[in-house]
Amino acid sequence: MEIAIQEIRDAIGSDVDIISTDPDDLHAHGYSEWSTVNTESLPVAVAYPRSTADVSTIAQVCYKYHVPIIPYSGGTSLEGVDFAYMDQIVQFNQEDMDVVVQPSIGWQDLNEQLSKMGSGLFFPVDPGPSAKIGGMIGTNCSGTNAVRVVKTRRRPRKSSAGYNLNGLFVGSEGTLGLVTEATLKLAVVPEDLSVAVVTFPTIRHAAAAAAEVMQTGIPVAAMEIMDEVQMRVVNLGGATAPRVWDEVPTLFFKFSGTKASVKENIGSVQRIARRNSGSNFEFAKNSREQKLLWSARKESLWSMLALRRDGEEVWSTDVAVPFSRLADIIEVSKKEMDELGLFASILGHIGDGNFHESILYNPVNGEREKVEECVKKMVKRAIDMEGTCTGEHSIGWGKKESLLLEVGPETLDVMRTIKASLDPRWIM
Amino acid sequence: MEIAIQEIRDAIGSDVDIISTDPDDLHAHGYSEWSTVNTESLPVAVAYPRSTADVSTIAQVCYKYHVPIIPYSGGTSLEGVDFAYMDQIVQFNQEDMDVVVQPSIGWQDLNEQLSKMGSGLFFPVDPGPSAKIGGMIGTNCSGTNAVRVVKTRRRPRKSSAGYNLNGLFVGSEGTLGLVTEATLKLAVVPEDLSVAVVTFPTIRHAAAAAAEVMQTGIPVAAMEIMDEVQMRVVNLGGATAPRVWDEVPTLFFKFSGTKASVKENIGSVQRIARRNSGSNFEFAKNSREQKLLWSARKESLWSMLALRRDGEEVWSTDVAVPFSRLADIIEVSKKEMDELGLFASILGHIGDGNFHESILYNPVNGEREKVEECVKKMVKRAIDMEGTCTGEHSIGWGKKESLLLEVGPETLDVMRTIKASLDPRWIM
Repeated sequence: MEIAIQEIRDAIGSDVDIISTDPDDLHAHGYSEWSTVNTESLPVAVAYPRSTADVSTIAQVCYKYHVPIIPYSGGTSLEGVDFAYMDQIVQFNQEDMDVVVQPSIGWQDLNEQLSKMGSGLFFPVDPGPSAKIGGMIGTNCSGTNAVRVVKTRRRPRKSSAGYNLNGLFVGSEGTLGLVTEATLKLAVVPEDLSVAVVTFPTIRHAAAAAAEVMQTGIPVAAMEIMDEVQMRVVNLGGATAPRVWDEVPTLFFKFSGTKASVKENIGSVQRIARRNSGSNFEFAKNSREQKLLWSARKESLWSMLALRRDGEEVWSTDVAVPFSRLADIIEVSKKEMDELGLFASILGHIGDGNFHESILYNPVNGEREKVEECVKKMVKRAIDMEGTCTGEHSIGWGKKESLLLEVGPETLDVMRTIKASLDPRWIM
Repeated sequence: MEIAIQEIRDAIGSDVDIISTDPDDLHAHGYSEWSTVNTESLPVAVAYPRSTADVSTIAQVCYKYHVPIIPYSGGTSLEGVDFAYMDQIVQFNQEDMDVVVQPSIGWQDLNEQLSKMGSGLFFPVDPGPSAKIGGMIGTNCSGTNAVRVVKTRRRPRKSSAGYNLNGLFVGSEGTLGLVTEATLKLAVVPEDLSVAVVTFPTIRHAAAAAAEVMQTGIPVAAMEIMDEVQMRVVNLGGATAPRVWDEVPTLFFKFSGTKASVKENIGSVQRIARRNSGSNFEFAKNSREQKLLWSARKESLWSMLALRRDGEEVWSTDVAVPFSRLADIIEVSKKEMDELGLFASILGHIGDGNFHESILYNPVNGEREKVEECVKKMVKRAIDMEGTCTGEHSIGWGKKESLLLEVGPETLDVMRTIKASLDPRWIM
């Protein structure tokens, strides 16, 4: 590895040292407070490439010396590549409504820049506040083989030329290659935007209302569920003070479109909510209220992390099921957590049948094993319901067994065959 | 191959012979009047599997004896697998808005069945009238390795478990495996539907109007362009008689949503059309008129085929470019065709920057070479504009060189590596 580090330094030969072996830096890249699995060993070095050419050089040297390589997001491996300095817009195509970016640009920064330009366009995907494009593409990882720089796809919005390498690399968690550039489709900033919040007596009532919204085809820009525990967590966290939320199952809606269509859709959703015992339907009358109403959803993970006392950790996981089964799996999983005395909150992207559970536990008194058991059961349950062990968090190290359970040995074998063909030294 | 045929017959051992070597059948599967490339040799046999297990047996035997295998759509290979008897709905999940189908069900049959059930749901993709799901997934071809039956993905609308094999197999044109079942997301039949048609003095005016529709984010369910030649072809074909169309560049729109939103969107599109010199804006007042207005678009390929005189053929091809370049490439390509004295019409999915050209030619007097040259130049031009050599027709045999030109040797190498890893005997 030391030879590899020297060879990378020599090959890139920049004034700035692009490789860091500073212990603090290694620790920052080797440990994450919200990862469910952390290794005991830290990376040996962290590389900070400035360009696709740098990334290619790093990958070639690592390949030569069989050095494992992981693009940085949560960072739990031996060698890290941190894209911190690759955070630029490479090319903005206003008329074609697309933008080429480097992996380390944050989606919020990107939208701020697009707004400052007065472009009238935005990148419509809306994950956690700190997410960066690279990570969103697949835990900061996609794109190229160790010795090849490839372009997976050209700019048109549609193509059927050759294999869809885009689809393959997205979500491959850095195990097939490293993303150095991405072209994103943009959407038009809608004429009008609104946010609504409505409470329900039970998760089942909320899920029934959400299903009716889906099944009547009302276009909502987002539809999120939070359970009574998660609402309490937000109140306790205090990030949205002085607003105090009712601690009951709650649906959050985002609407976008023309003024008339937003108004019409709010009306339709309100009627459906009422039919399903929804109450306290509130919708935002201006952008300040929008921000306030949406804030509980945005602050959910930070609120949970803020509740930790000394030594406590948060286990954050997700599964997805066909959406008719969502209320079933949430109910059973909540009951199981309660019986084990664990403090767990739930929130979900209900239209996708995808939900996240955050569990507070203390690793010293055997609680970690309880949590692991509970998560394992929840995953098994999701798979029994024709669901998936993860809707968007991916497999990582924590769900390798779950992946096998979900796809079976034949499909896993196909994945392994592809992996071996693109990364024969298994360094990624 | 004869040993392989016998072994398949023995292994499946059904009362009906699942393998046909009837010369008419071989010809029907080995030649297509709308394929740009036909081989001189016909397939040796055509297999008619009834189930995934049958397909698996066929693939295993072919693998054993190194017999090339092609799922039937246009059919230009040595051994065909025709999914004709696999045309059933396997599982319909009303609440979850999805359906599991076999590959040979037509998209129109599927929608008819969903409508008869009174489900209120439909499969919203809307290609040519005779298309079947298998072909739509990737020229009737995706899914499994010769010796493995794999499920590429589970039912949830979202998953990040393992590699996205779905994305890889879709569009792989039968070169990685055979699709035996597909799960389709369904959409809610909208409250209201409408169709509008508007004419323009030039392709450039029509393209400018379409761009403005995209850039203001007006939700249209479809936006299609047809040039003056294509409109004339429809008139000459007579399939939409007694209606006679103006023979000028024309945009076709489909709108769907609530009554209010459809009305609002029609109004917005009408204003944009007017600003861009559009005239004769017509919109359908009922479903009979809708059908009539949309019929010119639907009949376009058949109208062109109907114009052929003795010995003439139609070359049908497509490219896609970033949509700001669409008018440029159409104008130049039309001019080139005219200069060579070729009769060619154009239609396109303008929102995707994707357009199709149909060229009438007589293969005996050197016209085929002219057409090939023209298409080659158009593809080169599309690629120079950061476009793709095919938006939805795929590569087949006709565009192998274009694929290399588009993606370059490194990316093609990655595709080859994946192909070799999943189909080591290169039989697919």
